[in-house]
Amino acid sequence: MNKVYNTEIISVGTELLLGHVTNTDSRDISEMLSKIGINVKYHTVVGDNPERLLDCVNIAKSRADIIITTGGLGPTCDDLTKLILAKAFGLELEKNQAEYDLIYDYIRGGKLVSPNNYSQAMLPQGCTVFHNYWGTAPGCAFEAENKIVLMMPGPPQECVPMFRQYGLPYLRKLSDEQIVSHSLRIFGIGESSVDFMFRDEMNSMTNPTMAPYAKECDCLLQVTAKAESVEEAEKMIRPVINDAAKKLGEFVYGEDIECIEERVIELLKEKNMTFSTAESCTGGELAKRFTDIPGASAVFKGGVVTYTNEIKARVLGIDAELIEEKGAVSYEVAKEMAEKVRELCSTDIGVGVTGLAGPDGDGVHEVGTVFVSMATPEKTYVKELHIGDWRTRSFIRRMAGNHIYDMMRRYLSGYNVEWSR
Amino acid sequence: MNKVYNTEIISVGTELLLGHVTNTDSRDISEMLSKIGINVKYHTVVGDNPERLLDCVNIAKSRADIIITTGGLGPTCDDLTKLILAKAFGLELEKNQAEYDLIYDYIRGGKLVSPNNYSQAMLPQGCTVFHNYWGTAPGCAFEAENKIVLMMPGPPQECVPMFRQYGLPYLRKLSDEQIVSHSLRIFGIGESSVDFMFRDEMNSMTNPTMAPYAKECDCLLQVTAKAESVEEAEKMIRPVINDAAKKLGEFVYGEDIECIEERVIELLKEKNMTFSTAESCTGGELAKRFTDIPGASAVFKGGVVTYTNEIKARVLGIDAELIEEKGAVSYEVAKEMAEKVRELCSTDIGVGVTGLAGPDGDGVHEVGTVFVSMATPEKTYVKELHIGDWRTRSFIRRMAGNHIYDMMRRYLSGYNVEWSR
Repeated sequence: MNKVYNTEIISVGTELLLGHVTNTDSRDISEMLSKIGINVKYHTVVGDNPERLLDCVNIAKSRADIIITTGGLGPTCDDLTKLILAKAFGLELEKNQAEYDLIYDYIRGGKLVSPNNYSQAMLPQGCTVFHNYWGTAPGCAFEAENKIVLMMPGPPQECVPMFRQYGLPYLRKLSDEQIVSHSLRIFGIGESSVDFMFRDEMNSMTNPTMAPYAKECDCLLQVTAKAESVEEAEKMIRPVINDAAKKLGEFVYGEDIECIEERVIELLKEKNMTFSTAESCTGGELAKRFTDIPGASAVFKGGVVTYTNEIKARVLGIDAELIEEKGAVSYEVAKEMAEKVRELCSTDIGVGVTGLAGPDGDGVHEVGTVFVSMATPEKTYVKELHIGDWRTRSFIRRMAGNHIYDMMRRYLSGYNVEWSR
Repeated sequence: MNKVYNTEIISVGTELLLGHVTNTDSRDISEMLSKIGINVKYHTVVGDNPERLLDCVNIAKSRADIIITTGGLGPTCDDLTKLILAKAFGLELEKNQAEYDLIYDYIRGGKLVSPNNYSQAMLPQGCTVFHNYWGTAPGCAFEAENKIVLMMPGPPQECVPMFRQYGLPYLRKLSDEQIVSHSLRIFGIGESSVDFMFRDEMNSMTNPTMAPYAKECDCLLQVTAKAESVEEAEKMIRPVINDAAKKLGEFVYGEDIECIEERVIELLKEKNMTFSTAESCTGGELAKRFTDIPGASAVFKGGVVTYTNEIKARVLGIDAELIEEKGAVSYEVAKEMAEKVRELCSTDIGVGVTGLAGPDGDGVHEVGTVFVSMATPEKTYVKELHIGDWRTRSFIRRMAGNHIYDMMRRYLSGYNVEWSR
């Protein structure tokens, strides 16, 4: 890909401008594109308004090579996006018989109610149709005036799989060069420390390149190579990734994975071990995050949410006097939670978490004080965290979860669990 | 506000264009603005690049009256946003002594490490400073060339409270007219049905106005009035909201609230009742969502995540033979889950959920089949849902949760729980 393809994503929908929904489509498409070396330079959001959308498309034509739209394809939007994009490039909409027939079948099957649905079969002349297996409105792509245009439906459950299945391969074909990117995910040291560690490499390398990025609760180091073939790019990237992983050591929790819990599942599966959770301040989030991942049931047996002292005693069997004496937010109660849930659920590992997620305190501890614990066949570990009283409730809960997953990862990988104490 | 203030939000950050973080700032600011009648017409995202940011600011100047930026204020971004915005409006940056002194104290206290932090005290001449109680980089506002500019920090935990505390009052002051908006939140009927129900009112009304909007799993009806004072606008809005609430009846779960679980907490508090959860396919999400809300501990005692049949038997005491015979995803097991967890946790209400969130099926039920249950002192209710096999795992889990919360809301409000069967 000698030519650099600058990309703009235009999301169409008044509901985005009213703040009723979050623009996750732009994020997800951007993430997929960055991995194949296509630069997204702009995101634009505009309402369901023909004039303003046309203006935005004209601005995008002046500054981008690839224009990707999301939303505005459904029958209630009067297919605004297709009409305007066709107009901006001087194309007509024409009936696509295959899509028309499918819609006809749907309507006869009683699945769609509005004759407006037929307008979904009207597509820009000469376009490549992306059939929508996840909804009804088809997407499409066309090339005109030296620009590449892709139109995707708005609902994320349609947009994301359609872009993965059709959009990415369509754009990959444009390129003579292949771009490959891998990321090391890092927990326990921040982006600025990673930046500092790799300053020399970053300054001296041109292909592959290397860059650290911050995520909400952790960070990553991305290495990207360009070559004539994917194999060639992979070959260039491998030693760089390996060296970086070695330098970062036990702070790396995985390569090209979404989150630390994904790595924990892998490790538990490898070791054929199970675990259970006892949650107080995270209130079920620890279990929820784990079970967000399909297949978690192979290693996660279950857990308890002991949101009150009574339930800590009643369901887990923790001594009520101990809770009274030490307080629910304490080293001792955290330790008991992990041990008792491990016993109750008969798992190899039990983890516990108790703390103050805020906004209210308990008059004893600062908000953000959390005790996390892990009971293993050999030993129980407890760690006291001070996540920061200026942090939000949701950040404190999330970060506490990451610390527990990191304890598990360290234990299962044979690293020192108590490194930061 | 006779003048219409069109607004553009420009979010600055390469991490947004790489898809590493989601642009929630634009959503949250938009939602706050829509409630005071300020129209957001565009969201733009641009990277940490001076030329491209300047171009975007110039485009915004041509089409918006209010420009709000988020991000690019911290020391690692070289304070890009302030530099470029000042440049676009021909202003100089000058040292703000109060902010400088605060930063000096921070650094001496060891809380900041980089001398770059001092650059945070450099602000556009004559601006109104928004002190950042939630982080370090201050925000600000200025008026120039007939435009109003507000700059907010990027991290959501700083941006959102700062905008609420300083941004909203600053923008409210611009206006001679006051705009007030209230929303009815609706579960059980869709946006298009609500649209149909209120077609006549929407067509005939000009002030207040009325409009339905879809959210991910439910919808809302927003009523907005303009008047010389807030009191006047409230007076105009009240009968319209009351009539609409009456027409929608038991489908309305609340006014101006974030989510159905918030309403359930209120109702439980009113009735002085407690509840507990037994979750299979939602894997902790039901408890997590409830405990996202500060103060949930007054009514939520705890719950169990019974992700395997073994735990359903072991922790809840459900007959293993029943599970074997009927299957984990069944009316009978759902019923037992609610009843047993109610008993185990000694709560007034126990709820249960078991189903197939996908992507894999069980060979018996379609993905999206979920049984939700609620055990009350009088009776146990069980409902079979078919959320749709084309839905994502996360949607199925979320929707199942909403159905449970809605069952609780209906029960606690004295409505028919089994309305849809």
